[in-house]
Amino acid sequence: MKVIALLTDFGIQDIYAGVMKGVIWGICPDAQIADLTHEIPPQDVTAGALALWGAFKFFPKGTVFCAVVDPGVGTNRRAIAIQTREHFFVGPDNGLLWWAVSESEIVKCVELRNQTYFLPSVSQTFHGRDIFAPISAHIANGVPLEEFGPDLEVSELVKLPPLKAESSEQVIRAKVIHIDRFGNAITNLRYEDFVKWVSGQRAWTATIGGVRFNSLNSSYAEVPAGEPLLLFNSYGLLEVAVNQGNAAEQIGIRKGDVLEIWTERRDEK
Amino acid sequence: MKVIALLTDFGIQDIYAGVMKGVIWGICPDAQIADLTHEIPPQDVTAGALALWGAFKFFPKGTVFCAVVDPGVGTNRRAIAIQTREHFFVGPDNGLLWWAVSESEIVKCVELRNQTYFLPSVSQTFHGRDIFAPISAHIANGVPLEEFGPDLEVSELVKLPPLKAESSEQVIRAKVIHIDRFGNAITNLRYEDFVKWVSGQRAWTATIGGVRFNSLNSSYAEVPAGEPLLLFNSYGLLEVAVNQGNAAEQIGIRKGDVLEIWTERRDEK
Amino acid sequence: MKVIALLTDFGIQDIYAGVMKGVIWGICPDAQIADLTHEIPPQDVTAGALALWGAFKFFPKGTVFCAVVDPGVGTNRRAIAIQTREHFFVGPDNGLLWWAVSESEIVKCVELRNQTYFLPSVSQTFHGRDIFAPISAHIANGVPLEEFGPDLEVSELVKLPPLKAESSEQVIRAKVIHIDRFGNAITNLRYEDFVKWVSGQRAWTATIGGVRFNSLNSSYAEVPAGEPLLLFNSYGLLEVAVNQGNAAEQIGIRKGDVLEIWTERRDEK
Repeated sequence: MKVIALLTDFGIQDIYAGVMKGVIWGICPDAQIADLTHEIPPQDVTAGALALWGAFKFFPKGTVFCAVVDPGVGTNRRAIAIQTREHFFVGPDNGLLWWAVSESEIVKCVELRNQTYFLPSVSQTFHGRDIFAPISAHIANGVPLEEFGPDLEVSELVKLPPLKAESSEQVIRAKVIHIDRFGNAITNLRYEDFVKWVSGQRAWTATIGGVRFNSLNSSYAEVPAGEPLLLFNSYGLLEVAVNQGNAAEQIGIRKGDVLEIWTERRDEK
Repeated sequence: MKVIALLTDFGIQDIYAGVMKGVIWGICPDAQIADLTHEIPPQDVTAGALALWGAFKFFPKGTVFCAVVDPGVGTNRRAIAIQTREHFFVGPDNGLLWWAVSESEIVKCVELRNQTYFLPSVSQTFHGRDIFAPISAHIANGVPLEEFGPDLEVSELVKLPPLKAESSEQVIRAKVIHIDRFGNAITNLRYEDFVKWVSGQRAWTATIGGVRFNSLNSSYAEVPAGEPLLLFNSYGLLEVAVNQGNAAEQIGIRKGDVLEIWTERRDEK
Repeated sequence: MKVIALLTDFGIQDIYAGVMKGVIWGICPDAQIADLTHEIPPQDVTAGALALWGAFKFFPKGTVFCAVVDPGVGTNRRAIAIQTREHFFVGPDNGLLWWAVSESEIVKCVELRNQTYFLPSVSQTFHGRDIFAPISAHIANGVPLEEFGPDLEVSELVKLPPLKAESSEQVIRAKVIHIDRFGNAITNLRYEDFVKWVSGQRAWTATIGGVRFNSLNSSYAEVPAGEPLLLFNSYGLLEVAVNQGNAAEQIGIRKGDVLEIWTERRDEK
C-alpha cells in the first residue's frame, strides 16, 4: 500500500499541486495520491497544522503526508521528514507537522539534506515540487529516512502552541480556530478536556456573539432548522453550528473569536 | 475494476472529502477514486441528485457511487445502498440517489445497519467518513449487499419529483434547475419529451428573461459570439446558452426561473 | 506507467471533469489520472497553454495530457493528438497545446477522425467527454496514433505567438500573463532571454505600477515581509512578488500589464 496525501496552500487554479503528482508518479508510479486540501489560506501554517491533525488518523498505516505551507521557502528553515509508528510526514520545519506528530509515537526525524533524492535542479521558490514531492515518493518506495540526511531530536523541531483551550476553575476560553464550508465555527476545546473540567456534572453557560448555550447536542438535527447549537464534532472539538444554516454568518463569528464557558456561579452573583 | 466516485457538498477547502479517501484506501487499497464534485451547494439534495444523474451513465460497470448531501445526518433518516444492473449507489435515503437509480434496473436495496462494516466509532455528524466511505470500500471489495442490513422495497425509498418539465398541449414550462460554470442555464426539459410535444413539427416560441427563441441550435458556435441560443446539451436537457458568453448573467437567469415554450397559436391570438 | 493529466476550463462545481474520469477508467482501468487544473478561466486558450507549458516537463515519460479549453467545440475546428519524444497531447487544434509541443521534439501529429475510438454517441457541446477522454485512454492503452486519423504537418497546426517578451537594445517589455493564487504576477520574460540581454552586466531599472526594481532576488524571503521583489520563478519566468504578501493587489497589477526594463542610459538622459 502506497498512499501519499497532499496538503498545501497552493490552491487549485494553478498547476502547482498537479505538478507535484507528476513528480511523484515519475518516482513511484503506483502511488495512490489523495488531495487532503490545497485551499489552506496562503501561508497560514496554523490552519494547515489543524487540517493535517484532523485528517491523519483516518489514513492507512504507511501513508506519507506531504504537507507544504511554506512562507519560509528559500530561507534556511529546515526541510524535514518524520516517521511515526503509523505514518510518515514530510514538509518544512515550521510547526506545520507538529500537531499531527505530537499525538503520535515519533520513531525518527531527519533533516532533508541529501540532494540525490531531490529533483536535479532545485528552485528557491517551489520546494513542494523540487524536494517534498520527490522525498515523499522515495519514502513510498521504501527508502529509509536515514538516507535523506542527519537525525534531528524532537526537541529541535519548530513547534506550535498546544491544540488546547485556555481554562481555569471558573471559565474555559475556547478560541475559534476554523470556520468550515458549512459555517460551523470550530474551537480548540477538546472533548476530553471539557469532560474533565465539567466533572461532578456542574452546570455551565457558554456564550459567543450574544448567543447563550446551557447544554450540548450530539447531532445538528436535534434542534429545529435555523437554530444554533453546540456540539463536539467529528474531530472531537467543540463546534458552534446552526442546523441547516450557517453559524458563522448568522451569529457573526469570525476566526479568532472566543467562546466563554462559565460555571453557573457566575450567574449566581 | 474498482472505481469509487465521490459526490458531496463538503467543498474542497476542508479535509472532509480527503479523509473519505483515507478511509476507503484503508479498506480497499486498489480503489480508483474519482471526485465527481464536492461543490454541491450545502445541503441541496436536488442539486446533488441532478449531478449524480448526469454523471453515472458514463462510469464503468461496477462503479460504486458514494454520495453524501445529508442535512439529516444524526437523525433517524435511513442510510442505504442500492445495487443496479450496472452500478452501486451508497448514501442517505433522502432522494439524493433517486434520479440515478430510477433510470436503472434496481437489483437490490438495503438499509445500512450492520456496524461491523462501519468505522469502529461512528460520529453523529460525519457519516460520509464513518459509514458511507467504509461501506463503499467494502462493496468495491466484493462484499454482497445483504451483509450490510435488511432489504428495502423500492416503494419504501424517499423519492424526488420526476426530472421532467410540466407541460400541456399549449405550453411547456421548463424550470432552470442548474447554472453551470459557463453560465449555461440548464432546465428540466428532456429531449425526448420535447420531441414528443413538438411532433407534427408545429412551430413554437420560447421565452425567458425577455429573450425569445424560435429554433434550436446544436452547438454553441452556430450563433455569433455573444448571441444567445437554445440547445439540448450533452445530458439531453434543454439549455439556454450564449456563445462564448455567460447566459445567466447576460439574460439575468437564476435557478428556479421558468422558460416557457408556447405553440404558435399564442401569437396568432 | 499510464498517467493521464487533465487540464480544462470546466471548473470543479460541475461534474464535467469527473465524468471524463469515468470515461477514461471505462477504457483504461489502471490509468493514474492527475488533475492539473480545471480552473482555467472559461475559454481562455492562452491561459491553458501557459499552464500546460509550465507543467508538462515534470510528468513522466509516456504521460498523456488531455487538455480541453475549447470555445470552438461543435465547429469544424480540428481535434488533434500529438506525440512528442516524451509525451502525448490530446485536445482541440486552437493553440492550446502549442507552447508545450513547440518545446518538444514532435514525432507525430494526427487529426482525430476515426469514430471507432470516440464514445458511441458524440455530442456537439462536450468533446472532452466524447472524444478527448476516450482517445487519451486509448493512447494510454498503447493504441498508436495512426489509428485515430490522417497525419498532420506541424505547419498545419494552429499556433500561438511565441512565449517570449518583446525587447530591443534599450528596453524589454515583459507582459504579465498570469496572476497566481499568491498574487504573484508572472510575465512572459524568460530567464535565458534576460541573461542574453543583460550580458556585459549592464545596469538596468524595471518599473511596474510605480514600483521600481534594480536587482533580482532568488527567493521571496530575501526581502522583508511585505516588500516587493523581482525573481525568476520556478518555471523560469520573471515574476513580481511580495514576500508573504500579494503583489497583484498591493501594487495594483493586472493581467496584460507590462513591466518595462530599461538600460541605465534611460536615467542618464
